[in-house]
Amino acid sequence: MIDSLQYAHEHQARFLEELKSFLRIPSISAQAAHRGDVEAAANWLVDSLRAAGFPRAEVMPTTGNPVVYAEWLAAGPDAPTVLVYGHYDVQPPDPVDEWLSPPFEPAIRGTNIYARGASDDKGQLFVHVKAAEAYHAMAGAPPVNLKFIVEGEEEIGSPSLDPFIESHRDLLAADAALISDSHILAPDTPSIVYALRGLAYLQLEVTGPAFDLHSGIYGGAVNNPLNALCRMLASLQDADGRVLIPGFYDKVRPLDEDERLELGRVPFDRQAWLEEAGVSTDWGDPDYTVIERATARPTLDVNGIWGGYMEPGAKTVLPSKGFAKLSMRLVPDQDPAEIADLVRGHLERIAPPSVSVVVHDLHGGHGAIVDRKSPALRAAAQAYAASFGAEPIFVREGGSIPVVATFQRVLGIETVLMGFGLPDDRLHSPNEKLHLPNFERGIDTAIRFLRLLAEAGKG
Amino acid sequence: MIDSLQYAHEHQARFLEELKSFLRIPSISAQAAHRGDVEAAANWLVDSLRAAGFPRAEVMPTTGNPVVYAEWLAAGPDAPTVLVYGHYDVQPPDPVDEWLSPPFEPAIRGTNIYARGASDDKGQLFVHVKAAEAYHAMAGAPPVNLKFIVEGEEEIGSPSLDPFIESHRDLLAADAALISDSHILAPDTPSIVYALRGLAYLQLEVTGPAFDLHSGIYGGAVNNPLNALCRMLASLQDADGRVLIPGFYDKVRPLDEDERLELGRVPFDRQAWLEEAGVSTDWGDPDYTVIERATARPTLDVNGIWGGYMEPGAKTVLPSKGFAKLSMRLVPDQDPAEIADLVRGHLERIAPPSVSVVVHDLHGGHGAIVDRKSPALRAAAQAYAASFGAEPIFVREGGSIPVVATFQRVLGIETVLMGFGLPDDRLHSPNEKLHLPNFERGIDTAIRFLRLLAEAGKG
Repeated sequence: MIDSLQYAHEHQARFLEELKSFLRIPSISAQAAHRGDVEAAANWLVDSLRAAGFPRAEVMPTTGNPVVYAEWLAAGPDAPTVLVYGHYDVQPPDPVDEWLSPPFEPAIRGTNIYARGASDDKGQLFVHVKAAEAYHAMAGAPPVNLKFIVEGEEEIGSPSLDPFIESHRDLLAADAALISDSHILAPDTPSIVYALRGLAYLQLEVTGPAFDLHSGIYGGAVNNPLNALCRMLASLQDADGRVLIPGFYDKVRPLDEDERLELGRVPFDRQAWLEEAGVSTDWGDPDYTVIERATARPTLDVNGIWGGYMEPGAKTVLPSKGFAKLSMRLVPDQDPAEIADLVRGHLERIAPPSVSVVVHDLHGGHGAIVDRKSPALRAAAQAYAASFGAEPIFVREGGSIPVVATFQRVLGIETVLMGFGLPDDRLHSPNEKLHLPNFERGIDTAIRFLRLLAEAGKG
Repeated sequence: MIDSLQYAHEHQARFLEELKSFLRIPSISAQAAHRGDVEAAANWLVDSLRAAGFPRAEVMPTTGNPVVYAEWLAAGPDAPTVLVYGHYDVQPPDPVDEWLSPPFEPAIRGTNIYARGASDDKGQLFVHVKAAEAYHAMAGAPPVNLKFIVEGEEEIGSPSLDPFIESHRDLLAADAALISDSHILAPDTPSIVYALRGLAYLQLEVTGPAFDLHSGIYGGAVNNPLNALCRMLASLQDADGRVLIPGFYDKVRPLDEDERLELGRVPFDRQAWLEEAGVSTDWGDPDYTVIERATARPTLDVNGIWGGYMEPGAKTVLPSKGFAKLSMRLVPDQDPAEIADLVRGHLERIAPPSVSVVVHDLHGGHGAIVDRKSPALRAAAQAYAASFGAEPIFVREGGSIPVVATFQRVLGIETVLMGFGLPDDRLHSPNEKLHLPNFERGIDTAIRFLRLLAEAGKG
């Protein structure tokens, strides 16, 4: 293992150049115009896995964007098998004009590399490709069996992933899953995420008149769908963000005192947090701490809204339609489909008779809590400690990685969430970045983790 | 006069071709890209006025888009002088894909001509150019003195018009103003508008975090400006549209029983109104009739709203900013500047401390009520009756023509609102049209009006 660590250290510069090539591909899954780029990213990854030593690496079709599958089973049937998951698709880069360097021309400034996908998830995924290469170069093969499943639809809700996993149970069979698509608390404060929030995402369309009207001629006598849309959205929560939809909290698993004490030990620098978030004050349910609100409590956010006249100047239109994108972050044991139905039904019920409402279910994903005592999580904790020089802290995360719930349900395995991002990586925002020391320590951590897991055995 | 009526009738086909040329110019004042078209429309109109016989017709500069001024004072100092006002600019045509024929390629279908500006206001303005031409051809000159003031900024709130009128009081001196920029009740039910609503138009910008955030990482702990924007807008009125901003109704001149009785005599075909408006039901303050709500009561409408992710798919963004355009239709004696200040102050007061709010005043205009007993209004009523075969009904209108208040204030004259549009002309909407029989009867009415006014003298 020491040799592999040394190898990885010596080849950092080349690894970074390779990562840049990966980041240059604008594999935006949300936009049909980038379908070719999505496929190019999948093919690039297959080539990279093969170059790293994988005997099998291929693009496999799904009902949507392809999955990249790879396996390297040289450790034999008595060694544990680790299933590495990641995604090669990225978020749209807009607003593009707020980027300091173009989103798909990776730029190194200071100790960071800036590009869309640098942290979410190309950079973090690539860590594991390079860890495998290090074993290949110095030991012939990794000390555990490795499988990779890398999807191209994570940023659009992974519509093809669950069906693919369900129809490839044997191919994907493993002892633990490993995902690097999250962040640690600070460069020198590693952490392991043991819980994730789920998601229900809806699009709402409110129609008033069948066509745009002159607000002078009809204003006051025709209900304006934008006024109605705002009324409906505003009624869904109180000023502190408590959701007012009947039944919304019914299945929320309460935070017990023990867990609240543990979450209270997570270092929280309020000033630093405010700066990272770009706000002058926090906000939310005063019965919970900021960390609890952002990771362990459900939310309701308007992610987008539009309708009527949006150009310069003053058009006195009473528009025909208004639209909003609305998402709820969910916690165990809220079910995304149940919540989507609940919210849809509520919106249809509260819509005044003078407008009509259509609610589309854009996507959903389950939250998850994983067992902190498993051999894989213990190996991860030891690897972090050795590579970062500090014991990792167990934390919950506010984002969604629905595949964790799928791995539990379909493959019966726990997932190690081995994040190498940082809280200020600006995922989904302009100027997304990855901290370069985390990239290097990440490869170190992954190399150590595989060895520790091999020593622990199948557990 | 009979000769002039006959002349106009015989030249209808040519008049219509000329109108089409005018309508082909996309003189959209709200969009800087169309500045050249705005100037082209002004020049076209000057040429057309000269061809109609005006000894003086010219483009005059303002601080913004130019004014077209023309005069023809052949009737002499003892005859009344009529100041015709109109506007050669038009609304943006969006949403363009809902037009059955392109907005700037005039198309005749059935008894209508379809184009942006057909009714608002090029078609109605052109009626008076052609009435003058008919007198020129058959009598040498009109029987009253004529002045034209035609602006190119009506659709953006006429920022340069009041200063122009104030600095040209002598040039514009007249006994009455005449505007055709409104509608009659039905093709065979002429009407005269004696009251107009004013307008205050604001743009609201709500900022939460300084940059877009990932809703998973920060959702629940950072106030979302779109949620806050919706809450703020929703709080401004109740479900029936009654405005809840303290002081909003303080200066509203109450409708007395006499006027309510008169407005109650306006024919109202509920089913036809619903079809024109493209709605299944009316809406609004139940203490007032539909006609009262739409013409004699103040309103508050969100004319546009935008922010966050507006593209296909599901981006889990907690956006930095949300925007809305917000306008209030005003009635006598609400002052637009006072109302803008009132609403701005209220919005700033109700904004939660976790967001910041900037309110821009986009424009405003006074409402007006004119004297129904003046010689000019009586001449107009007689002209309508002769041309349309029915006595006109006196009505209030919900839209804004702020210049009416300016003419009262600066020039000391009343305005005749001689509309030739129809309620279903779809002003500001796709498929704007002008009813062709109204164009022809309109020229007839204008010819008769000038003669009747000459007979009435300076009154």
